[in-house]
Amino acid sequence: MTNISLTDIQQAHERIKPFIHNTPILTCSQIDEITGAQNYFKCENFQKVGAFKARGATNTVLSLTEEEKARGVCTHSSGNHGQALAYAAKLNNIDAHIIMPSNAPKVKIDAVKGYGANVIECAPTLVAREATVNDVVKEKGCTLIHPYNDNRIIAGQATAAKEVYEELGADYLDYLLTPVGGGGLLSGSLLSTKYLSPSTKVIGCEPEGADDAYQSFRQKKHLPSVNPDTIADGLLTTVGEIPHAIIAEYVEDIMIVSDEEIISAMKLTWERMKILIEPSCAVCLAVVLKNKMLFAGKKIGIILSGGNVDVKAISKFL
Amino acid sequence: MTNISLTDIQQAHERIKPFIHNTPILTCSQIDEITGAQNYFKCENFQKVGAFKARGATNTVLSLTEEEKARGVCTHSSGNHGQALAYAAKLNNIDAHIIMPSNAPKVKIDAVKGYGANVIECAPTLVAREATVNDVVKEKGCTLIHPYNDNRIIAGQATAAKEVYEELGADYLDYLLTPVGGGGLLSGSLLSTKYLSPSTKVIGCEPEGADDAYQSFRQKKHLPSVNPDTIADGLLTTVGEIPHAIIAEYVEDIMIVSDEEIISAMKLTWERMKILIEPSCAVCLAVVLKNKMLFAGKKIGIILSGGNVDVKAISKFL
Repeated sequence: MTNISLTDIQQAHERIKPFIHNTPILTCSQIDEITGAQNYFKCENFQKVGAFKARGATNTVLSLTEEEKARGVCTHSSGNHGQALAYAAKLNNIDAHIIMPSNAPKVKIDAVKGYGANVIECAPTLVAREATVNDVVKEKGCTLIHPYNDNRIIAGQATAAKEVYEELGADYLDYLLTPVGGGGLLSGSLLSTKYLSPSTKVIGCEPEGADDAYQSFRQKKHLPSVNPDTIADGLLTTVGEIPHAIIAEYVEDIMIVSDEEIISAMKLTWERMKILIEPSCAVCLAVVLKNKMLFAGKKIGIILSGGNVDVKAISKFL
Repeated sequence: MTNISLTDIQQAHERIKPFIHNTPILTCSQIDEITGAQNYFKCENFQKVGAFKARGATNTVLSLTEEEKARGVCTHSSGNHGQALAYAAKLNNIDAHIIMPSNAPKVKIDAVKGYGANVIECAPTLVAREATVNDVVKEKGCTLIHPYNDNRIIAGQATAAKEVYEELGADYLDYLLTPVGGGGLLSGSLLSTKYLSPSTKVIGCEPEGADDAYQSFRQKKHLPSVNPDTIADGLLTTVGEIPHAIIAEYVEDIMIVSDEEIISAMKLTWERMKILIEPSCAVCLAVVLKNKMLFAGKKIGIILSGGNVDVKAISKFL
């Protein structure tokens, strides 16, 4: 049982609306022909900071008390959540301290700095990361904003699916597919679906090389991600406790795909839809392509989670 | 004086609405920062067949009499108009004969065939093209649909700017920028602006290597494109007579940019907006980047005209 209500999601949406895009839903007749299904792509790759993460981070920062805001926020992230929190903090004119591993790509560090955040580098280990976060929290008195294991984050991420149902109508979609990393987007999407489009089945899509959600679902217990290794670098993490409980209760299925299948779906999206998405974002289309029989003739919503791929890195896939 | 009325544009829009996308308008805070202006990108690269050309071709085919429809349509095109006419013909279940030069890329020939059209190859010269078209018209009795020198085409292309003003509001934009090739999109945009957002200034954007619209505007007479040579291969053609008359009367200015500036703007769009656009589509942003003083602090609408770029060809720019 979750304690995130429809009202929580509605309030999150009202709170963040001035600061996020209601991203477009695109269709592509060529991909529909290839898959044999009708696909509706919710383009969170065009969201602020290039990913859905702007929703949860903005909702969380806007939910802080004035006193908490005055003390600033922090998180550890080498990816989209760091940028999203820096963006949300800048909107509110408060301090953000983003702990990043010293081996993070310079382009990602620069992006976070570009939003005016204070980047604190640490050794690239979980132990160093957590120790550094604890130090920063103690020293600055700032609030740690977890990337997914937080009701406010989940309510924020839930607004992407809410917009899908508002645009397409309740129960229009047979399926809604989202990637699973920490589980914030999937659990939020599950709640919006339960409240707003209850006949739509939600499927979480995961890389084989980081299949903790798949294993947890199959074995009916909360299992960690062990030595994850996948090109979908946004999905390496273990699902959080709060998202796990929501997923265990409401998800239709978790499906996995190989890195080869992810790359193939990513290239298809570049070629046919002419949009640049990151590998983590391509798992859902890879799942549709792998399971054509299941999805034949169905209406499928796909959340394109993010577009933060380096254009210069593209040529290696061509 | 044009004889295309607001009612013509409104009727065109009603006619084609079921068959085209009301494409999204995207913004990009990073590009706004770089240009010092507020840019609104109307994404016709996400239109059916990947370009605004679907609008004019669909309007024209839907405007034919039943007898004309029964005899089919034809055109000569190595680019987006050929695909657009094939698409429009398929919608109406009528024959389309597309004359293409024998040196057209196989991927473009396949795209036209993919819409079920009959592709007729000819020698890659204007003389061979026109002779072949005449033969086809005589033999099949089909109607030649010109890519831009036709009121129905112009009324169709005008609907892109109409959607911009319906979404952003009348007179919200200081400027609207479109590329100029044959002039269908620019002249249609000028008419929608005159009728629906009269205080917005419209600027045509052209490559230096195919600057007939620029020369015509400066010299106040209708001049042809002489030995055009530019990477923006959709803009090689001379402006048609009908578009020329509309442009001469209503355009604020025609501005030109070099191929180097076009490539730079194209790469910036790929990198910051994460969308793949073709070179012809990048001329407008190139104009904004080149004339920062003029556009500083202004609200600018930019019609992203098309996305038909081969993903495999991208690496040569990276």
